[in-house]
Amino acid sequence: MKNLGYYNGVWDEMEKMSIPMSDRVCFFGDGVYDATYSRNYTIFSLDEHVDRFYNSAKLLEIELPHSKEEMKEILNELVKKMETGENFVYFQATRGNDPVRAHVFPKEAKANIWINIYHKEILDLTKLVQLITMEDTRFLHCNIKTLNLIPSVMASQRAKEAGCFEAVFHRNGRVTECAHSNVHIIKDGALITAPADNLILPGIARKHIIEACKKMDIPVVEEPFNLEQLFDADEVLVSSAGALCLVADQIDGKAVGGKAADIVVKLQHMLIQEFIDRTT
Amino acid sequence: MKNLGYYNGVWDEMEKMSIPMSDRVCFFGDGVYDATYSRNYTIFSLDEHVDRFYNSAKLLEIELPHSKEEMKEILNELVKKMETGENFVYFQATRGNDPVRAHVFPKEAKANIWINIYHKEILDLTKLVQLITMEDTRFLHCNIKTLNLIPSVMASQRAKEAGCFEAVFHRNGRVTECAHSNVHIIKDGALITAPADNLILPGIARKHIIEACKKMDIPVVEEPFNLEQLFDADEVLVSSAGALCLVADQIDGKAVGGKAADIVVKLQHMLIQEFIDRTT
Repeated sequence: MKNLGYYNGVWDEMEKMSIPMSDRVCFFGDGVYDATYSRNYTIFSLDEHVDRFYNSAKLLEIELPHSKEEMKEILNELVKKMETGENFVYFQATRGNDPVRAHVFPKEAKANIWINIYHKEILDLTKLVQLITMEDTRFLHCNIKTLNLIPSVMASQRAKEAGCFEAVFHRNGRVTECAHSNVHIIKDGALITAPADNLILPGIARKHIIEACKKMDIPVVEEPFNLEQLFDADEVLVSSAGALCLVADQIDGKAVGGKAADIVVKLQHMLIQEFIDRTT
Repeated sequence: MKNLGYYNGVWDEMEKMSIPMSDRVCFFGDGVYDATYSRNYTIFSLDEHVDRFYNSAKLLEIELPHSKEEMKEILNELVKKMETGENFVYFQATRGNDPVRAHVFPKEAKANIWINIYHKEILDLTKLVQLITMEDTRFLHCNIKTLNLIPSVMASQRAKEAGCFEAVFHRNGRVTECAHSNVHIIKDGALITAPADNLILPGIARKHIIEACKKMDIPVVEEPFNLEQLFDADEVLVSSAGALCLVADQIDGKAVGGKAADIVVKLQHMLIQEFIDRTT
């Protein structure tokens, strides 16, 4: 298939799929998700993404109907139905259906499982990206990958209108993350990345960057950094499932980074190699 | 009909309605809503609710397909189809459909219009309610009535589990509003209510309470108040479309209010009378 939509065991082309109006996603965005990529029909870091998905669900007290192993099997089987092996693999769970709209959990809280798969490859890491900065006005549960994403929608649109790849959020100067990526800096040979608290998503690409740095004996500092440090960094890196480790050369129209190309190139090489090795 | 679901001109019983999986509500909760009540098949404060709905949409840059007059006509026509004249009248707009999930606005951003109507009457104002308090961890766009409602869902569930009607949010002690209501206090003969900034919804019941107080020569102070003032208030009031002006007698298990019953009774009487007069 060219693309695939799945809802509680039923699947078809995404355009042909519909869902009940009583699904709580419709009124509250009441659900969690996760997403990764496949290559050669192999889903990258599936264990880590499924683990994070179950953790997000647990934090919102959404009881999932499948075991982790069952969930992975469903995803692996669905990827096989695709025309190509290179896909975006997205999955979410919503807090069941309600006959009428009520904020409180429904009595029979049977979660709905959704999956979407379509052809998409991870981004070319050699391409430099441009960013804008924005005040972070999101809720204080950014560690949970929820479907309450309006601030990220608005920020992504602002970035696009500015001809940029992403918007870097900051809380009164303290850099948190981007609208749909994490952000890190390299300074004096060390990687500085915001701590995995409630202000950022514990990115899996972020985790792989930290692991790669440790292997390369690059010190890793998991501490808050501010806008001044961002603009003054030797390199500015953006990471997500689809952008393993992109380099930014401009923020708010000002030139940034470009002072530790050797580290960046080695890091990107290691990350790409890991992606290839684990999807071969 | 017993209940009614409507989506872009198609309507049926809510349970029979489905919506396309590509609606952006499914992935981002990307939409806005409003809601009010009907009595005798007449929708209360429809102009005000439709005005606020269009304002919420504008703030999220969602272009609505109908004029306000058309929207009101659709709502008025649908209410006539109900078995009884006393209903909850809910309407929302989502930012169109996307063939694939992307944060940025879709190219053809044709908004989808949703309506749900079901039998429900406004609450009995003579019944005292109990509340809990919770830290307000929501985003900083609470003036917009969006479908990103997970923190309100969680807070409502906590309140229910505590046997309470609502959760009062506060930001580091500063009282904002409840999970799905506004909250006000009466102290020394004056109404104190949080200002209509980005931390609260500009409630229409709140507006009617303010107007009623002014008619009764009760001073109105639209200024922030804190938890200490809440617990020390002469009366604590909770308001929403379905709870025009409820009185709380307990918060976090401690007795509150009960010291200005004369004001409260007059206020409630005026609000109920307004509701009746405008739906006769």
